[in-house]
Formats: sequence, C-alpha cells, structure tokens
Amino acid sequence: MTDLISIVDTLCRTPRVGWLQRGVADAESVCAHSMLVALLAGEIAAQLNAEGVDVDIKEVLAVATVHDLAESVLGHPGREVRERLRWEEVEEEVFKREFPHLAELFRMYRYETNLVGRVVSFADKLATLIRACRYRKMGYDTGDLVKNLYLKLSKYDDLAHLLEFYVSKYCGSLV
Amino acid sequence: MTDLISIVDTLCRTPRVGWLQRGVADAESVCAHSMLVALLAGEIAAQLNAEGVDVDIKEVLAVATVHDLAESVLGHPGREVRERLRWEEVEEEVFKREFPHLAELFRMYRYETNLVGRVVSFADKLATLIRACRYRKMGYDTGDLVKNLYLKLSKYDDLAHLLEFYVSKYCGSLV
Amino acid sequence: MTDLISIVDTLCRTPRVGWLQRGVADAESVCAHSMLVALLAGEIAAQLNAEGVDVDIKEVLAVATVHDLAESVLGHPGREVRERLRWEEVEEEVFKREFPHLAELFRMYRYETNLVGRVVSFADKLATLIRACRYRKMGYDTGDLVKNLYLKLSKYDDLAHLLEFYVSKYCGSLV
Amino acid sequence: MTDLISIVDTLCRTPRVGWLQRGVADAESVCAHSMLVALLAGEIAAQLNAEGVDVDIKEVLAVATVHDLAESVLGHPGREVRERLRWEEVEEEVFKREFPHLAELFRMYRYETNLVGRVVSFADKLATLIRACRYRKMGYDTGDLVKNLYLKLSKYDDLAHLLEFYVSKYCGSLV
Amino acid sequence: MTDLISIVDTLCRTPRVGWLQRGVADAESVCAHSMLVALLAGEIAAQLNAEGVDVDIKEVLAVATVHDLAESVLGHPGREVRERLRWEEVEEEVFKREFPHLAELFRMYRYETNLVGRVVSFADKLATLIRACRYRKMGYDTGDLVKNLYLKLSKYDDLAHLLEFYVSKYCGSLV
Amino acid sequence: MTDLISIVDTLCRTPRVGWLQRGVADAESVCAHSMLVALLAGEIAAQLNAEGVDVDIKEVLAVATVHDLAESVLGHPGREVRERLRWEEVEEEVFKREFPHLAELFRMYRYETNLVGRVVSFADKLATLIRACRYRKMGYDTGDLVKNLYLKLSKYDDLAHLLEFYVSKYCGSLV
Repeated sequence: MTDLISIVDTLCRTPRVGWLQRGVADAESVCAHSMLVALLAGEIAAQLNAEGVDVDIKEVLAVATVHDLAESVLGHPGREVRERLRWEEVEEEVFKREFPHLAELFRMYRYETNLVGRVVSFADKLATLIRACRYRKMGYDTGDLVKNLYLKLSKYDDLAHLLEFYVSKYCGSLV
Repeated sequence: MTDLISIVDTLCRTPRVGWLQRGVADAESVCAHSMLVALLAGEIAAQLNAEGVDVDIKEVLAVATVHDLAESVLGHPGREVRERLRWEEVEEEVFKREFPHLAELFRMYRYETNLVGRVVSFADKLATLIRACRYRKMGYDTGDLVKNLYLKLSKYDDLAHLLEFYVSKYCGSLV
Repeated sequence: MTDLISIVDTLCRTPRVGWLQRGVADAESVCAHSMLVALLAGEIAAQLNAEGVDVDIKEVLAVATVHDLAESVLGHPGREVRERLRWEEVEEEVFKREFPHLAELFRMYRYETNLVGRVVSFADKLATLIRACRYRKMGYDTGDLVKNLYLKLSKYDDLAHLLEFYVSKYCGSLV
Repeated sequence: MTDLISIVDTLCRTPRVGWLQRGVADAESVCAHSMLVALLAGEIAAQLNAEGVDVDIKEVLAVATVHDLAESVLGHPGREVRERLRWEEVEEEVFKREFPHLAELFRMYRYETNLVGRVVSFADKLATLIRACRYRKMGYDTGDLVKNLYLKLSKYDDLAHLLEFYVSKYCGSLV
Repeated sequence: MTDLISIVDTLCRTPRVGWLQRGVADAESVCAHSMLVALLAGEIAAQLNAEGVDVDIKEVLAVATVHDLAESVLGHPGREVRERLRWEEVEEEVFKREFPHLAELFRMYRYETNLVGRVVSFADKLATLIRACRYRKMGYDTGDLVKNLYLKLSKYDDLAHLLEFYVSKYCGSLV
Repeated sequence: MTDLISIVDTLCRTPRVGWLQRGVADAESVCAHSMLVALLAGEIAAQLNAEGVDVDIKEVLAVATVHDLAESVLGHPGREVRERLRWEEVEEEVFKREFPHLAELFRMYRYETNLVGRVVSFADKLATLIRACRYRKMGYDTGDLVKNLYLKLSKYDDLAHLLEFYVSKYCGSLV
C-alpha cells in the first residue's frame, strides 16, 4: 500500500480501540493522536530549549508525525494483540518496507536512541494520558489508563516537571 | 471487558481495516458485517433446506451473529497482523475467557466442525466478496479481494451453485 | 428490497428516534440495538440454563438477531406512529413477505409463544433500559424511559432476579 | 417535545429512509431536505414573479422551512408506513398540537390551499427528484424514484417549464 | 456556486467553528443553526402577536431561514477573521451576487431595518446562547460565550421578558 | 486557545470548504490534509536526496506538519474570504501569537525562504491536486481545481519531474 491518500485516510478513519472499549462515542483517530503527539512534543522541546537543554524542535516534530505510520498497514489492534507479538519489531519491519526513508525516525522513537526519540516517546504516552483525562471529564471510565500511564511517565525523571505541568493543566485534580 | 454496551459499540464503531486501506469513505463496521453474514447464512440455510439438505437455520443465525465477537477485545487489525499470529487460537482463547457460554458456537464456525459452521464460514467470506463488489461499483479498487475470495469460495464444492447465484446477483459481470 | 447489503446498511444507519428526541448526539442504530439484544438474551439464556431452566441459547440468539428486521422496510418511526397502527401486525406482514424463512422466529418474539420468544422480548426491553441508563449517565434526559421500561420488565415475574442483576450493573442507583 | 434544540437535532440527525434503502452512504437528513425545499421554492417564486405571477417569496420560504416539522415527533418512516395511515391527517394533528402557531402554514403546503402551498408542494417533490439524480450520478440505484417523481411533477401544468429547467440542470440526460 | 444541492450540503456539513474550538465532539452545523433560529424566531413572533405586537410570523421564518446563506460561499471562519473584515458588508455583497432575490431579507436581519429583522437578529444570538448552555450541560466549557451573549441580548429592552423565559428554560441556573 | 486537544480536534473536525462546495460527502479535514502534505513532502525530499539535492527530510516533515496550524484559530474559510484579507499576514500573526516556537517553520513554508519551505509549499498544492483527482474519480466535479493547481505547480521548474510522477500516479489521464 503505497498510495499516500489511502494511508492518510486509513489513519484518520481508524479509531483508537482503547477508547472504543471504554465507550467513547467519537473516539480519537490515529492521525489525530499523531498530531497531538507532535504538538505536545514540539512544546516540550521548546521548553527544554528554554531550560538550556539542546533538542531540535524540528526533529521532534518530524519523529512524532511519523511515529504511528505503521498502523496504516497493521491497523490499531487491542492491547492483547500487541502483547502477543513483538509489536516493536513488527512495526519496524513494516516501516522499513513501506517507508524506508523514514525508518531511522521511527527507530529514534521506538528505541529512544537519543533525546529526540525520548521526548517523542514521552509525548506519545502523555498525549494518551491527557486525552484519557479529557474523556473522563465527559463521563467515560478511563481511570485505569490514567493511573497506568502516569506511572509509566513518572519514570522519565528528567521530564518530571513537565509531567506535573501537563497533568495539572489537563487532568486537574484527577490524577 | 464484560460491559455488553461497550462490546456492541466497539464492534459497531470499528471499521474493517481492509476497506479503509482501499480508500472506502464510510467503511463497513464489524457489527454490520456480522449482521450481513447472519442474513446471508440464514438465506443459504433456507435454500439448502429447500434442496433437502438438513441444516438448522436458527443455529446458523446464532453462529453467524457471534462469530466476530472476539474483535471487541482484539480490534480488527490488518491482514499482516493476523498472519503473524495463530489468529484462530487467539480468537478462541479470548472467546473462552470472555464469552464462555458462546465458545462452542465459535468453534463450529472457526473449525467448520459441522455443516452449520461450514455454512457460516462460507457466508463470512461471501459477505466480504459481495461487499467488495458493491464498493467496486462505487469506484473503489477492491478487485484483488474479489478475485482472492472467489477462489477461496470456489473450494466449497457443494455450495458452488450458491456462490454463482450470489455473485451473479451482487457482482454482475465483475468476477 | 431483497438486497441484503442495503437491508443491513439501512438498519446500521437508522438511529433509534427515541434517543434523537432525547438529544443523544451519536444515537444507537437499529442494528447496534439488535446486537445488544442478542448478547443480553444469550447471557440470560446461559444463566437460566445454569439455574436448571431449559432454553436453547442458539434459538435465543437467532430470534434476537432478526427481531427488528422489518424496520429495514418500515424505518424506525416515533412511538406515536406505532400506536396509531397495529404495529405488530404490520411488522409480521412485512416479515412474511420479505423474510418468509424467518417469520416463525419473529412470531416467537412478538407473541412470546414460547420461552425463547419470552426471553428475547424481555431482553429487547432490557437492552433499551440499560442503554437509557448509559445515556443518562452522559447527561441526557432519559428518566421517563427508565421508569417506564422498568415497570414493564417488572411484570416478568420469573425473570425478576435477572432484572435486578442488570439494573444493578448498568443503572447503578439510578432506578 | 417542545425543546427546540432536540427538535432541530432530531430533524438534522434523521436520515431519509428512502435513501438508506437505496444504499446511500451519507444520506440527506430531514433538515437538509427542508433547507433544499426552501431554496428551491424561493428560486421558483422569484422566477414566477419575474413572469408576472404574484406569489410571496417570504411566504414560500416560511412554508417550506416548516413543512416537515412533524417528523421531529413522527420520525421518517418508510413509504409503506405512510400508506397504511392517513399520513396527512396524522401530520396535521401533530402540527396542531406541537406547533399550533405554524399549523396554518402546514395546511397551505399539505392541501395546496393556495399558490404558496402549491409551489412548496411542487418544490418538495422536485427537491427529492434532483437529489435522486445526484445520487444516481454517484452510482446509487434511484431510477425508480426519478421516474415516479417526474410523473407526479408533470401534473403541475403551469409549472412545466420550471420542471424542465431543473431537470435539465440537475439530472442532465438522466430523465 | 449556484448548485442548490451543494449549497445546502455545504451548510449542513460545515460545523460552527466556535463549538469546535471549545471541544464539542458533534458540533452544530450552520444549517442546524439556521433551523433553530427559524423555530425560535417563529415562537417569539407568535408570542409577540399574543401580546398585541404586530410582526409577521412568516416573514420572520423566511428571514431566519436564509440569514446565514452567505456562509455556503464564505465558510464559517473564526471570530478573528470576521473582525478583520467588514464581515457584514462581505456577507451582503455575496448575498446580492448569489441570492439577489433574497438580498432584501438578508438586509432586514443584518441591519435590523424593521421589527422582523430585529426579532431574527435577537433569535440568532439567542439560538447560540441556548446551544452554549446545552453544551455546557454536557461538560464543555462554553461559559465565556454564555456570558457574552447574555450581555448582548440584554440590550434588546423590549424583548427582555423573552430572554428571561428562554434562559430559564434552556440554561437553568447556569446564567 | 492554547488547549492542545482542542486545537487538534478543531483541525481534525474542520472539513476543507472547497471540497464541501464541490459536493464531497466525506470531505478531507484540515488535519488529514496536513498529514498528507507531510507524507508527500517527505517522499519528495527523499527523492531529491537520491538525486543529489540536499534537503533535510526531518525539516520538511516538521514544516509540513505545522503549516496549517493557524486554521485552528481562523477556521478554514472560502477562497473569497482569503482573497479579501492579506491571508498570509493574518496567518503569520496568529502563528506568532499562538505558536511562537513554531513561527520560524511557518515562515519557511509561507514565504518559501529556503528549499525546505519551497518543497512544503509545492507539496501543499500537490496534496490538494491529487486529492481533487481522487474525488473526481468518485464522481465529484473538481476539474477546475485540477487545472488551476496543475498550472501553479508547473511553475516549480526544478520539481517538474516530480509533478509528472505524482500526476501520473494519482490522476491517471485526468490532467
């Protein structure tokens, strides 16, 4: 599938299954998620720059934009499917085959091979966390995800202050 | 996930990824597919009865209705994901855990353990074939699927006349 | 209209008008309702079996799946329209004409001619009740329906314990 | 139901069932139809004025806008349901009860009591005809409707030139 | 763009951007808004008539129905775009060019040249206010709009009792 | 509006008005367009690299991803609105205020200040061209846009071979 229109439309019409399973009526698509990760990662990179940390905003945006492209081929299966596969390797294999010119960017994110990839990986989880908080505010049961993601994000010690900032802004007293 | 409302809504909001990848704008959901399989299988069973073949319409409808329930947990991933797993076994495992009272019905379909299961398995592929023909009529490129499914369906020798009937009705001169 | 694809798509694109009239943004379709009735009825039959009551799960699933098929022809009009017609007879007439091989199943449900039909008729009302509870949780005014349906369901004496179980699970303290 | 928001949203979320039954994926809602009737009727009235015929554009727009309001209560059932009822009388009864201040406008349209009502009744059928032509162009089978409506519209002798104009513009050589 | 079908469909598929910016999932379209303004304005005119004030219900309905037609050409841009243009004049220019036979109606509304236009202009703001209240009830942050519109509507001294009636009915204790 | 979730959702729920005006039923959103521009621009940059031209793929992806962010504030108005404003300057002003850390990227694209911006600007038009071709294939009248965009793209002399490649792939013999 190298038709770029079909790739984009698949991503923009694929709802993230975790939201569906929690009853969300108009669930976030994979492409909306990718855009949110990009904007979050860009803001975070800008903030890190302001704190004197050197990380390229443009690289962060690029990696975030493409990080879920393999889902145009693989779809967005449930957590149980991912856990039964070496999902990272499957994604990478698809990436190399379908988007060879972008495979290096994918690897940064997936294996957190540098600060750019680390920021995107953090933003990926954070985007899901703040979306879960938003859905919770609308009455959906996403509390399990909120807790689970907060725990994972807490392990990025050097970004702890950013986690607190975003949680405070988007989750209020919910975490 | 034993909340029946969330299970149904997940199935009715999950587009089948094969259609998305072929550019379909308003792709068939998993629950619309299940309903189509049920109606097709019911018609086929009635026709077989008329031909003197003994197959229970009610059993056929029941098996068809539940045959994709595991996708409420697993989602509807792309073909490549299914091929990398023993998808049948994964589905069965989920079925046994989440819908133990329906697991026997799933096995009939999946392993074609009797004529009921065989009819549903045939109707499952046929439902996808005639949908592919309908999408092709609207301008989408589904020709590969049409050919592929026709080949698989041709192997059900005893149902060959039904294959011809449905192809003639829904695909016109397209196969 | 004997085109099965159009029949299914009509059912899956027809919102139940009672939800629209109560302001629901993404209202349950007729086919999502049918699927929910099937899953509920299947669970109930399994529970009855466990209690020593003999009712065939497969028959229950079959009847539930087809019980609203006539709406593919009739649409899903408001309550007032149904009350001005002998709606049951209209449905049966359409059923006999369009789906003669399934008309017997419809009659079981509509006239509760046996335990299978009785369970499906109970599950039909119960599916609407628990959906009304879910919508109420999201902020929609469905209180009148909740009360009204609970009253009707209370008349199934032998299924009273099941009514309590489902109301407790899906409606919380709302009834 | 006197909540105006729910009334409007019901009309704007109710797909016209005739399109669904012909397989249309994104079927026209009742409120989109009402708007189309209003714009058509307004254009026709302006043209009649230019030809020296006296008909009030504002009255025509008003009557067209409200002509289907009763469907917020009744829904939009299939043709067979309408034929089994005295649909006109049911609509009028609902109109008088729910929108007493607009009931006079409804009567103009329904019984073509004056030229204003006659123009709206003509525009109502014409709006459905040109929509059927548009859907046919997209690949849907609406030929039966096109023929049927053209025949009905041909009976408005004094508006025959307008029928030809609109058919030529929206249906091309399809009629 | 004089294709009436495209005009209507553009209006019915254009979400009002202010709702999107406040996070509304299934935002009101321009045509749903126009229909709501028409119903509100019609009710208000009927009430004014009952109070002995002379205002033509049909004219009010007609003006309300067409008041946003120019958005089929201009789209529905954000507030900042409107403020940078003489939006009223742009709308009027488009109206004169695309809908010359309706331009007089537009002017009544836009410049409140008579009581009919004044009622529609009031109903336009009121429709947005009560919709904002409805969205707030569903959990969206529309408080700023509610306050802002209430202030503007308070300036219609002679309609103050109607403002209170509608706010009480649709906004409860929220204003 | 600095709520990133609302920004993304506004972009992903805003249909591009040009498609609506040409009758497209399920029109491309602004965020789907941005994603398509990013993938196209990334492919083009990779191809240019293969030809020995030095352009950073990551920068191209980053600029493409953010190039329409101002539309989260401004909406996506019709062509006529844009022409009446110095649209470029309005976008830049919004960008500087809302996304100061990304304003430099916007300027590259808008004023084609370097090869990165030039490639994104080319890909922006090309994404619209190939989408117009796709819609034309489905039966929508987009021929005017196809011609108009092809003319504009023809002025990028150094990218002429890429224009031919993409037109041949996505538009067939339609240009």
